[in-house]
Amino acid sequence: MLTNLTIALDMMGGDYGPRSSIPAAILAVKKYPNLTLLLCGNEDVLRQALQKESHLDHPRLIVKHCEQVVTNNCEPAHALRNKRNSSMRIALELVKSGQAQACVSSGNTGALLSMAHYVLKMLPGIKRPALITSMPTEKKQPVYLLDLGANVLCDPETLFQFAIMGSIVAGEALDKAQPKVSLLNIGAEDIKGHDGIKQAAKLMCECEHLNYQGYCEGSDIFSGKSDVIVCEGFVGNIALKTCEGIAKLIMLKFTNALKKHFFYKVLAFLLRPVIKKLYKKVNPDQYNGASLVGLRGIVVKSHGNASNKAFLAAIDEAVREVNRRIPEKIQTAFERMAKTEEASVSQD
Amino acid sequence: MLTNLTIALDMMGGDYGPRSSIPAAILAVKKYPNLTLLLCGNEDVLRQALQKESHLDHPRLIVKHCEQVVTNNCEPAHALRNKRNSSMRIALELVKSGQAQACVSSGNTGALLSMAHYVLKMLPGIKRPALITSMPTEKKQPVYLLDLGANVLCDPETLFQFAIMGSIVAGEALDKAQPKVSLLNIGAEDIKGHDGIKQAAKLMCECEHLNYQGYCEGSDIFSGKSDVIVCEGFVGNIALKTCEGIAKLIMLKFTNALKKHFFYKVLAFLLRPVIKKLYKKVNPDQYNGASLVGLRGIVVKSHGNASNKAFLAAIDEAVREVNRRIPEKIQTAFERMAKTEEASVSQD
Repeated sequence: MLTNLTIALDMMGGDYGPRSSIPAAILAVKKYPNLTLLLCGNEDVLRQALQKESHLDHPRLIVKHCEQVVTNNCEPAHALRNKRNSSMRIALELVKSGQAQACVSSGNTGALLSMAHYVLKMLPGIKRPALITSMPTEKKQPVYLLDLGANVLCDPETLFQFAIMGSIVAGEALDKAQPKVSLLNIGAEDIKGHDGIKQAAKLMCECEHLNYQGYCEGSDIFSGKSDVIVCEGFVGNIALKTCEGIAKLIMLKFTNALKKHFFYKVLAFLLRPVIKKLYKKVNPDQYNGASLVGLRGIVVKSHGNASNKAFLAAIDEAVREVNRRIPEKIQTAFERMAKTEEASVSQD
Repeated sequence: MLTNLTIALDMMGGDYGPRSSIPAAILAVKKYPNLTLLLCGNEDVLRQALQKESHLDHPRLIVKHCEQVVTNNCEPAHALRNKRNSSMRIALELVKSGQAQACVSSGNTGALLSMAHYVLKMLPGIKRPALITSMPTEKKQPVYLLDLGANVLCDPETLFQFAIMGSIVAGEALDKAQPKVSLLNIGAEDIKGHDGIKQAAKLMCECEHLNYQGYCEGSDIFSGKSDVIVCEGFVGNIALKTCEGIAKLIMLKFTNALKKHFFYKVLAFLLRPVIKKLYKKVNPDQYNGASLVGLRGIVVKSHGNASNKAFLAAIDEAVREVNRRIPEKIQTAFERMAKTEEASVSQD
């Protein structure tokens, strides 16, 4: 933790832009004395915001002027072709050139995925990047879910690679040598699901580097029985966002129920801190950043409507991933698997 | 509501068998004076259970002896071939022969789907049956979600047919002439999702009989903006079960948080009725039965671990569907669409 860290931030993304990214950046340099932040965005806007917060001349907050912004409704292909001077693109280029060890953005997810893939490139042997996040469980340790939408549909080999990458991320985060990996399916029995799922299960089952546990149903995501849950992006995105929706609904129904009687109104007032804390704990939206894995660099995606604290949580996540050297560890694992495969082929 | 109703119940299914189905049947005949129930299952077991509840000679509780039971781990193909005298099969046969107007089972979902498809057959022009249920929303009216797992993968035409069927079910239930139909996707923009989703969206958009609203994200399922949300079975099952999982997690975290201090413990005790009521409201598991639509008959699937009340809720649902004549209305709609299509073809 004592070596110097440099992280590039896309300051202009998300619903709030510098209104949340500037306070988050200031909190981050206070929190990490070894952290330098490269603030990518419109120089005038950023300098003004820094001045307002009395941090204009902070030696570890360095503004990198970018002329363009990738907006939320910008199509990925358009962003890739026409937004070469955007804060998002420059933040990624800083990682590519080695000036930063990671980047964080709360901008347009599709554009970030395309740009990150294009600028940083895949690690050798990996087919597709995946978006991974941790979610709370009934136990103390969280569960890691991937892919959350980087790849709408996935072939069995891609799902298998996600299992390997998820296992490395969870292993480092939870300090476990053999994290338990499950495949999300519509039933726990072998006959359940479609062919792609069954083939992916076979690949995971046969791999000696994976502690594969079998299928996991949606109702079991939060049980804490698995450390990693693998699914294709379409399904992962729906599962994650359905959680957001139902968490919001439960909180709304609960506060409405409490409003019905004066007695419960008083209770509700007394319970406010508990309810607030709980909502933050269980709403994945509020939980932290999601990371792109499989690339030659660390990219953390913060939620579009991230508050200061949520954006700071994404910076925290980037710091942790730099310290854990996730991309190198993924690369080593895939190289080792390729060697095992070669050896078994030459033996045959 | 005054005409006589007859519903066949599979008494042996689910985790509790007659322990929940007998009390539910007794509650149902008390609730509906015009309802006769055909209780399919082992005669000795059922008579003994009825006697225990002092309802052995109730004139509207008629035992139909069945020698076999479809267990939870029985494969659908095996059930279809070898369980012709099971309570599940007999209940379906009673619907087919017209002796019952609907059937309810809390048994093995896969087996029920296969048997119902085989025994009752599809309505003309409909490709696949779908499992549909209502879920709570932020507004007063629920939303109808289909398919929940009857079809793992679906082609665009099948998703389109689900939209039509869902629209009829929701229209009748919510008393709306033009229920709002959305397609579940990983983003609201047109460019989001895979080809199958985009093709299904095109079919829905072009259909004059549908009030199609566009894509809906997972986080928007419970907003109350849509009356019907369409997805393929894999995705619907994951969404539904993820809700069960997160609802359970939230309740657990909430009660744990309340246990931490004596003050909150007292509050928790006072709040018990509100929490209990809320859990029932938002946990789809507890909500009610799911129905199979698209078949020549009414089949309601109650959850496997349904309590007396939950099984009664499934009987309630069957009663409502008989009164609403859902299968006839679906048939009429598809016939009308086929005629419109023929007319437009002959005009061309």
